[in-house]
Amino acid sequence: MTLNGHQLIGQRSFAAKGEAIHAINPTTGERLTPGYPGANAGDVEDACRLAGQAFDAYRATTPEERALFLETIAEEIEALGETLTQRGMQETGLPEARLNGERGRTCGQLKLFAKVLRRGEWQDVRVDPALPERTPLPRADLRQRQIPLGPVAVFGASNFPLAFSVAGGDTASALAAGCPVVVKGHSAHPGTSELVGQAVARAARRCQMPEGVFSLLFGPGNEVGQALVKHPEIQAVGFTGSRSGGTALLTLAQSRPQPIPVYAEMSSINPVILMPAALEARAELLGEAFVGSLNMGAGQFCTNPGLVLAVKGAALERFKQAAIPAIQASPVQTMLTPGIHKAYAQGVASLSEQPGITCLASGESDSPIASPCQTQLFSTQASDFLANEAMQAEVFGASSLIIECEDLAQLKQVCSALEGQLTATLHLDEADHTATCHLLPVLERRAGRILVNGWPTGVEVCDAMVHGGPWPATSDSRTTSVGTAAIHRFLRPVCYQDLPDVLLPPELKHAPAEGISRLVDGEREA
Amino acid sequence: MTLNGHQLIGQRSFAAKGEAIHAINPTTGERLTPGYPGANAGDVEDACRLAGQAFDAYRATTPEERALFLETIAEEIEALGETLTQRGMQETGLPEARLNGERGRTCGQLKLFAKVLRRGEWQDVRVDPALPERTPLPRADLRQRQIPLGPVAVFGASNFPLAFSVAGGDTASALAAGCPVVVKGHSAHPGTSELVGQAVARAARRCQMPEGVFSLLFGPGNEVGQALVKHPEIQAVGFTGSRSGGTALLTLAQSRPQPIPVYAEMSSINPVILMPAALEARAELLGEAFVGSLNMGAGQFCTNPGLVLAVKGAALERFKQAAIPAIQASPVQTMLTPGIHKAYAQGVASLSEQPGITCLASGESDSPIASPCQTQLFSTQASDFLANEAMQAEVFGASSLIIECEDLAQLKQVCSALEGQLTATLHLDEADHTATCHLLPVLERRAGRILVNGWPTGVEVCDAMVHGGPWPATSDSRTTSVGTAAIHRFLRPVCYQDLPDVLLPPELKHAPAEGISRLVDGEREA
Repeated sequence: MTLNGHQLIGQRSFAAKGEAIHAINPTTGERLTPGYPGANAGDVEDACRLAGQAFDAYRATTPEERALFLETIAEEIEALGETLTQRGMQETGLPEARLNGERGRTCGQLKLFAKVLRRGEWQDVRVDPALPERTPLPRADLRQRQIPLGPVAVFGASNFPLAFSVAGGDTASALAAGCPVVVKGHSAHPGTSELVGQAVARAARRCQMPEGVFSLLFGPGNEVGQALVKHPEIQAVGFTGSRSGGTALLTLAQSRPQPIPVYAEMSSINPVILMPAALEARAELLGEAFVGSLNMGAGQFCTNPGLVLAVKGAALERFKQAAIPAIQASPVQTMLTPGIHKAYAQGVASLSEQPGITCLASGESDSPIASPCQTQLFSTQASDFLANEAMQAEVFGASSLIIECEDLAQLKQVCSALEGQLTATLHLDEADHTATCHLLPVLERRAGRILVNGWPTGVEVCDAMVHGGPWPATSDSRTTSVGTAAIHRFLRPVCYQDLPDVLLPPELKHAPAEGISRLVDGEREA
Repeated sequence: MTLNGHQLIGQRSFAAKGEAIHAINPTTGERLTPGYPGANAGDVEDACRLAGQAFDAYRATTPEERALFLETIAEEIEALGETLTQRGMQETGLPEARLNGERGRTCGQLKLFAKVLRRGEWQDVRVDPALPERTPLPRADLRQRQIPLGPVAVFGASNFPLAFSVAGGDTASALAAGCPVVVKGHSAHPGTSELVGQAVARAARRCQMPEGVFSLLFGPGNEVGQALVKHPEIQAVGFTGSRSGGTALLTLAQSRPQPIPVYAEMSSINPVILMPAALEARAELLGEAFVGSLNMGAGQFCTNPGLVLAVKGAALERFKQAAIPAIQASPVQTMLTPGIHKAYAQGVASLSEQPGITCLASGESDSPIASPCQTQLFSTQASDFLANEAMQAEVFGASSLIIECEDLAQLKQVCSALEGQLTATLHLDEADHTATCHLLPVLERRAGRILVNGWPTGVEVCDAMVHGGPWPATSDSRTTSVGTAAIHRFLRPVCYQDLPDVLLPPELKHAPAEGISRLVDGEREA
């Protein structure tokens, strides 16, 4: 479990020849070793060709075999233990408890997709038996199942070095679907990525998976990622990151001779709406809890509460008066990378220059941290917000903006003017129910998840989760990148007409294995 | 039920002000009345804005209400009877029996989506109940359902004036999902379109659907269609037509500030593979049946068998000797429009100029038909086909190309080189099973439907159908435009976290209406 600065093409671990990337410890500014020489065009070609060669053999594995593979990956990652946590802390500045929790979440996610595979519903089996006597025309025997799209390119995210990275949700759901995966490791945490990549490769070997089912490449700049997205073997892309990054990959994928789907989870400011009765009843509690949510992980969450909406008045003043000292007492935190720190500082500066913006409070600033995050809270009037699209730009980090509305009608107007979001949060009491009923249809059209009396940070990995939403929250609102429905991103339906039973895939045979749910002639059969 | 050359914006039927389109009788070349003045930018704006205004009210209708709406549309279309058939025949040159059959199919399709709505599975309800005692962190109550995307633009197809047009599969599945629809009627059959549009509008009025749930616009050229796709209220596009048309709409949709999904069903040459034992056993029967399928509807089907693959030898010669006289005896048929006739003639000319192409036989040519189709059969060697991408271009009409392969290995190589297809057909006997097993994985990766011992023309509307496939067969291989799974194109998931029961939508409540299938804590509940 030593780090050697290697890439992985299938089982082949090797030092590439390109310009090296080095992780930076964002707390100390220290450059970490080893360096990771970047892949060249030939490496990308090799990894993609191998993934293409592995595809038919990999998709021919049984769901049970893939379930065991995913569980073995989880086992191998768990076995990395402290080594993984320590390297993760050095590379990301995230605290130990968070990384241990994220490791658990990552392994839990892999195991959950193993359960999905065993449950079988992901195949969406549909059978319309032949009706040879039907008039005026007989019906053929028609059977449908889902098959995997093909090799998938996955881009690791900076802010979840485990759960949205090398063996994160995109990789887990793509492997579950039967797609080989080529990961472009994030340059901010190559050591963490190499450790996890080695774990996946060991699991592939232990489970005798086809060579090339998994590869891990590094590279400075955008060349490796662009080459991956353009490669003809790649059939889908998973990405979590900035709006500009996601949009660039989407454009690239669509300009291919054969366009492919890109699942980019990009930007969201996650409005939190304080309904009047709830605000009146517990303004102070809400103010303090809000700052707690805002500061989590230095605000470096896709679901960070970047916008607070409320009707102006005494209750909102109480909320602000509770939030302000909590903001001012917020200690400096470490951001993930020097680049993210710089973008945060620019975002804060740009927001504070907008007409009508007031800075309500700033957190502590005195710190030796190399890539610091100083918490910021702004406020503005709804009319100013409505007149200025720039105020909707995501500031990635612990910054938030309170929108003061004249009344609930204007608050609804602000909601209607919002871009697509991952989440929309409501704090409400029973007396707010009627007003909420008018807001819900607006929020449903703008968000993938609507939550009540909680905070958007914290994304459960389960069947019902949606971590998605309309553009620009994601590039494809029909999907989720967290939760079991994520598997559907990497599948497509195929219909088999009048195939002899012996040629049908197992789940479509006239007498299928037990326990596969099928829709037969319009009726659900367990 | 008189034709008045009107557009429909909601219930408002009116004469637009733009340049008029006129249908042409493709048999006689006669220009049909009335003319249909084209919509202008203001009309597009009005239709889209009205659709946007209708959206929340329409999606708030119950599935049962929408089911009744779809059934009422079917009733109104059936009531058009002979009027519809006669106008359709004049505008398309299609025979009476075909149009009556297509009317039945169209109405059956609407009724099938009513069944889907009542069955409830389309909502994909998932419930993960709260686990307040879970450690280290409790789980919130999480509930997921599907909601409609928003107003949909539907482009009528030329070759199915009913089943893929104003109230065809795209409109039926979008309306079922809860999306208002704005149709751009095909310029080849405006009268047929107006009749069906009036029927939909009458059904909307009878069912008291929100004003704007359906509109129908006409226009010469591409302006109306482009304005529709660019309009911010439009959230998805359904299209059946040419590869260039679909690609143009896709590019336009992706260049919007908010990109939207385009479901374009574009081009397919539908390979038919004659496996050795089957060919040996019944070469003559296959040759005759092939020509029958090729000639159906003058070959103007997306699933027309445009490619035949076989290993060369005596059996293939017998197939050709049976096909050739059948081709030569093929009477001239009427094509749908002068434009399609012209494109067919150009496609045939271009194919016949490719190096290594032999024209095996041509059908009858002497005819007074204004837009005639002369059946054509070509052959070439696999090596020539593999060296020349131009041979894969779809020739829309009754033209097909036999690829003569040296052996099964080369036949597989040809299959691997094919672009994405709607269908792949195999004729096989038991002795072909082993060889077929090697071909199936190749075909699965290239086609949406694989069929055995039949012909690809004829697409059943049912649960298991896939009328889709990898690019360029469609712009989104994850979907189908025929069959009940088509509804998923117009839906996206939303997750509700910790909502009070009273605020939850009906299907997500703690005690839901009976009969809704839900995935609760990973277990399927009927």
